[in-house]
Amino acid sequence: MIVITQPNATESQINEIVDRIRELGLDAQISRGASRVIIGVIGPESLLREKRLAVMPGVEAIVPVLKPYKLASRDSRNPSSVTIGNVKIGGNEDVVLICGPCSVESSEQIVSIAKVVKKSGAKILRGGAFKPRTSPYSFQGLREDGLRFLAEARAETGLPVITEIMDARDLAIIEKHADCLQVGTRNMQNFSLLKEIGRSRLPVLLKRGYSATINELILSAEYILSEGNMNVLLCERGIRTFETATRYTLDLSAVPLLKSKTHLPVIVDPTHALGVREFVPQMSLAALAAGADALMIEVHDSPELAKSDGDQALTPEIFADLVPRLRAVAAAVGRSL
Amino acid sequence: MIVITQPNATESQINEIVDRIRELGLDAQISRGASRVIIGVIGPESLLREKRLAVMPGVEAIVPVLKPYKLASRDSRNPSSVTIGNVKIGGNEDVVLICGPCSVESSEQIVSIAKVVKKSGAKILRGGAFKPRTSPYSFQGLREDGLRFLAEARAETGLPVITEIMDARDLAIIEKHADCLQVGTRNMQNFSLLKEIGRSRLPVLLKRGYSATINELILSAEYILSEGNMNVLLCERGIRTFETATRYTLDLSAVPLLKSKTHLPVIVDPTHALGVREFVPQMSLAALAAGADALMIEVHDSPELAKSDGDQALTPEIFADLVPRLRAVAAAVGRSL
Amino acid sequence: MIVITQPNATESQINEIVDRIRELGLDAQISRGASRVIIGVIGPESLLREKRLAVMPGVEAIVPVLKPYKLASRDSRNPSSVTIGNVKIGGNEDVVLICGPCSVESSEQIVSIAKVVKKSGAKILRGGAFKPRTSPYSFQGLREDGLRFLAEARAETGLPVITEIMDARDLAIIEKHADCLQVGTRNMQNFSLLKEIGRSRLPVLLKRGYSATINELILSAEYILSEGNMNVLLCERGIRTFETATRYTLDLSAVPLLKSKTHLPVIVDPTHALGVREFVPQMSLAALAAGADALMIEVHDSPELAKSDGDQALTPEIFADLVPRLRAVAAAVGRSL
Amino acid sequence: MIVITQPNATESQINEIVDRIRELGLDAQISRGASRVIIGVIGPESLLREKRLAVMPGVEAIVPVLKPYKLASRDSRNPSSVTIGNVKIGGNEDVVLICGPCSVESSEQIVSIAKVVKKSGAKILRGGAFKPRTSPYSFQGLREDGLRFLAEARAETGLPVITEIMDARDLAIIEKHADCLQVGTRNMQNFSLLKEIGRSRLPVLLKRGYSATINELILSAEYILSEGNMNVLLCERGIRTFETATRYTLDLSAVPLLKSKTHLPVIVDPTHALGVREFVPQMSLAALAAGADALMIEVHDSPELAKSDGDQALTPEIFADLVPRLRAVAAAVGRSL
Repeated sequence: MIVITQPNATESQINEIVDRIRELGLDAQISRGASRVIIGVIGPESLLREKRLAVMPGVEAIVPVLKPYKLASRDSRNPSSVTIGNVKIGGNEDVVLICGPCSVESSEQIVSIAKVVKKSGAKILRGGAFKPRTSPYSFQGLREDGLRFLAEARAETGLPVITEIMDARDLAIIEKHADCLQVGTRNMQNFSLLKEIGRSRLPVLLKRGYSATINELILSAEYILSEGNMNVLLCERGIRTFETATRYTLDLSAVPLLKSKTHLPVIVDPTHALGVREFVPQMSLAALAAGADALMIEVHDSPELAKSDGDQALTPEIFADLVPRLRAVAAAVGRSL
Repeated sequence: MIVITQPNATESQINEIVDRIRELGLDAQISRGASRVIIGVIGPESLLREKRLAVMPGVEAIVPVLKPYKLASRDSRNPSSVTIGNVKIGGNEDVVLICGPCSVESSEQIVSIAKVVKKSGAKILRGGAFKPRTSPYSFQGLREDGLRFLAEARAETGLPVITEIMDARDLAIIEKHADCLQVGTRNMQNFSLLKEIGRSRLPVLLKRGYSATINELILSAEYILSEGNMNVLLCERGIRTFETATRYTLDLSAVPLLKSKTHLPVIVDPTHALGVREFVPQMSLAALAAGADALMIEVHDSPELAKSDGDQALTPEIFADLVPRLRAVAAAVGRSL
Repeated sequence: MIVITQPNATESQINEIVDRIRELGLDAQISRGASRVIIGVIGPESLLREKRLAVMPGVEAIVPVLKPYKLASRDSRNPSSVTIGNVKIGGNEDVVLICGPCSVESSEQIVSIAKVVKKSGAKILRGGAFKPRTSPYSFQGLREDGLRFLAEARAETGLPVITEIMDARDLAIIEKHADCLQVGTRNMQNFSLLKEIGRSRLPVLLKRGYSATINELILSAEYILSEGNMNVLLCERGIRTFETATRYTLDLSAVPLLKSKTHLPVIVDPTHALGVREFVPQMSLAALAAGADALMIEVHDSPELAKSDGDQALTPEIFADLVPRLRAVAAAVGRSL
Repeated sequence: MIVITQPNATESQINEIVDRIRELGLDAQISRGASRVIIGVIGPESLLREKRLAVMPGVEAIVPVLKPYKLASRDSRNPSSVTIGNVKIGGNEDVVLICGPCSVESSEQIVSIAKVVKKSGAKILRGGAFKPRTSPYSFQGLREDGLRFLAEARAETGLPVITEIMDARDLAIIEKHADCLQVGTRNMQNFSLLKEIGRSRLPVLLKRGYSATINELILSAEYILSEGNMNVLLCERGIRTFETATRYTLDLSAVPLLKSKTHLPVIVDPTHALGVREFVPQMSLAALAAGADALMIEVHDSPELAKSDGDQALTPEIFADLVPRLRAVAAAVGRSL
């Protein structure tokens, strides 16, 4: 940590700052510039985290030096992989396609879509049973029935299942049926939920909050990791900007950035970022070229009848047509799919 | 709802759209322009909400006509007031000051601050017992002890108490000690929590998500209202923008906008928006001039020792100095304080 | 300037960084932490501005210490006032109302509006002769005719005139007719234009770019000041955010922030921020409460016929009704109007 | 255009709206819903552009139907290509690499970089002679000398030259030396400049304003096209968002979006979006996968000595290593490079 003083800080103010640092068991090294004094704070920075040098008279700015996360950090670690059912994601593993509808609507629907996406190359099935919806009057999901239908689809196809958790009280029932917990964008900073699933045995796919910074995403992962669950996957799904031509702005720079800062696998969900199916294929290709370890793509066999977000799902035909192109781009950047 | 067709939509596509509308029991009125057909959909729009005209071939855009919220709407209602303890907020009531520290740190601390803010004119005490923190390594609050200390401060001063709820499982214990539930910015779209507190007997102060639109804020209020809890207050607390000179950007236009769209009381929290105490007084004055029904301002008697966010809290002296100026501005816009 | 090294920086990398600093005639002071070395750079920072310590091997981050602007800085200066015609803005002067239509449309129109706003209390007339429009097919302004009509309105009413300059080649003709140059939001970083008007004898009202930070706004003012024109006024007019309920988000925190960082007068334009007239009165009151030195408000006597932006202009009646309330708020914060 | 009335609009208000529409020579078709009336306006919408139905009593909203641009529109046109020197960009042409330093610094520097990027596969040389800089105290470019050095580099290597124009008064001198004009992000809405270069014989590379919507970018292109210069290329270079981990957020969705809305070639500049060289290779690969027709990448042979933005330029070695990977991704999406 570095303390920068105001141009008019007095000697006695500077002495008080240094005294406060030393009271905390840290060392202070002073550099005097033409108009300001710079105080380098040496020692374990965690001692300082909750204290408030910033409000002492004479202080202009505080510059932290250490990163605020530890378990998620890439420092001295190789990229790690996470196993969902029998499928590995991350590290040097093959790129994985995670597909399915936005919501589970019936047993027939989810089994049928599971079969069709498996045939085209998907390795994991997604589908929502508990649905976070902006309006209380929108369809809220089939809940436990939806979980059972997902398990049926797994039994039929062998595809492991990812589904969203919105409430810590649903953890036991979801653990009974699913292979991976998904935390949605609106719950990325629901810290009670993060702590609870940090004690689950299931891996967690953590979606970036639509206005969360990269650092906040990593800190939310750190909540889960620090409770003992080391199987966390990070998912970029679009951020909120001034641009309204797409529903969110897919921030693909997050892929190499996250991979440089953490060892966790990085997934991209182009479907929710765009909000319309028209550009999902191009952005899926771009996500792989940027280095994504997996893609999460909505596929629905009759999008015009979907109970939620039907206008953004790919049809099975468009998806089947996309997979070989994804394979070609994956190969071009040295990955398999 | 209005359906706008693509310039090259065929007659058979248009007929299918009209058929779909009529199958739903609605009426369709067709206007033919030079290059597009416009279809007005007549009837109860809720029938359409989950259906997907948007994905039908030939459709370019769908324009909703009705607002998606009902109970929160200002339509044909006067501004309503909400009672916290014995204090009314909203309607034509006096402007209310809600003050206290970010976190409850000890019995002595919260009692002492409660006394000092009451003396200067505050009518409600705020203080966090359960703290949502970006990092798992930051101070997480005194939890149940914090609630008890808040109740002690109320017993000593008579000030009703507002405190944050982060987890539906804490509702019973918080209801035992507090007079109003606060939902923080990171939980504005925690729909499980919203539904649960919609069944509470306590009023709810709902903070705007730092990247939530005005419409999303009202829809989150609608979640609470639709469960039967009609005592909801809306709070603007800054939104996330590209500007980093303040921690968030305080969106004061939200005040008249919310008051034109809903009948609910509107509160402004300048402290969390700015993140530094220096400009809290000016923005408090501005919030009253814009029409706020109450202000929530952090006050701490030794900010340099605060366990969280000390650099943004006003000292008791600065707060005492501010109140008469707030009174003058309130009077200038026809309100009392 | 402070240089922070990477955790694995070698001694020879550190030595090269220090050598580079000393070659530039600066001094380097070294603090060794547990995992990083911090190098304080002592001496005139301008020597370093274009050099690139940041790209040297072993460097993790560079933290600038000095502010990048000088002439605009508040350091050791009192707030200054700027004179437009015979009207002073800033310092301890009265709050000023600058009113008029978006575009000059005819001699009759501008003379009539000038009379009506003067009668209600406006001290300066605004009106666009050269109009920056997003579409090439929109009305582009009356150009030189518009300038002449503005001068006629000044002759009739005595109100000094502000008008926008979009092109350095129009400077001579605008100087002939107007009392103050306005630089619009889209030209805030048109550096060629800024340099040119830095050599004008007229004061300059510089609008904040709709996505410019506070620091960028001040640096654009510094362009004008550094050419010798010391009469610059800064204008907050709304920034672009994710919120679409208003056209832009009026950032009123910019008012106290700019006044703490610079000595220049600060003006607020609520009209363009909101884009609809409905909330202009409340936000005008709020702007004064936040400390604005002047307000720029669009008034049009027949908004439904206006050639540009008619739906945001106040009618003369609404404006006349607003002025006494503005006076009351100004008085409440210790200013006159 | 569609007019939606307020729920409480009276018959006489509706009649006045319809009368106004018909006075303009347009037709009005009325659909009556349960709570609102919807009026479809039929006829050439340009008649309505400057008029103001929106402010008439009883009107709730106006929904435009037609796109505001014509010459740039994809409607009934194939993707077009633009020729710079002897190099074609767009349509089905090969993907093009446009490389060079941020600023021209000397004859030796630009000739040397031109040779090295040509050898690795670049087809066009970029370099700034006139530099838009946020601070007036930063290096402002070599101006005419810089243009001459660029022409020397072209003479030595045969690479056509792109350089930025900041001021219409520099057009003649730039036309004498360069093969393509670049309009920078800060000048995207400098409409005077756009009109002037719309009369130039040189093609124009128009960079997206860092806070411009896709529609605004296309409308700025329309300014140039409508003056007769049909050779416009659009360039995505990052938009300003809340995320600070990269300098801007590269919006790659803009690539397929622009290609669906316009026939103009689309270029991506990953260098300025990211602001650090570390992730330029991955985002270059992603841009090609998303469908870019060309990439603009900064390359500098001694970045640590660069006069501007040295920390973002690729070294010649990194660039040489990147080109074969770009070729592989281009091939994977059916393009050559």
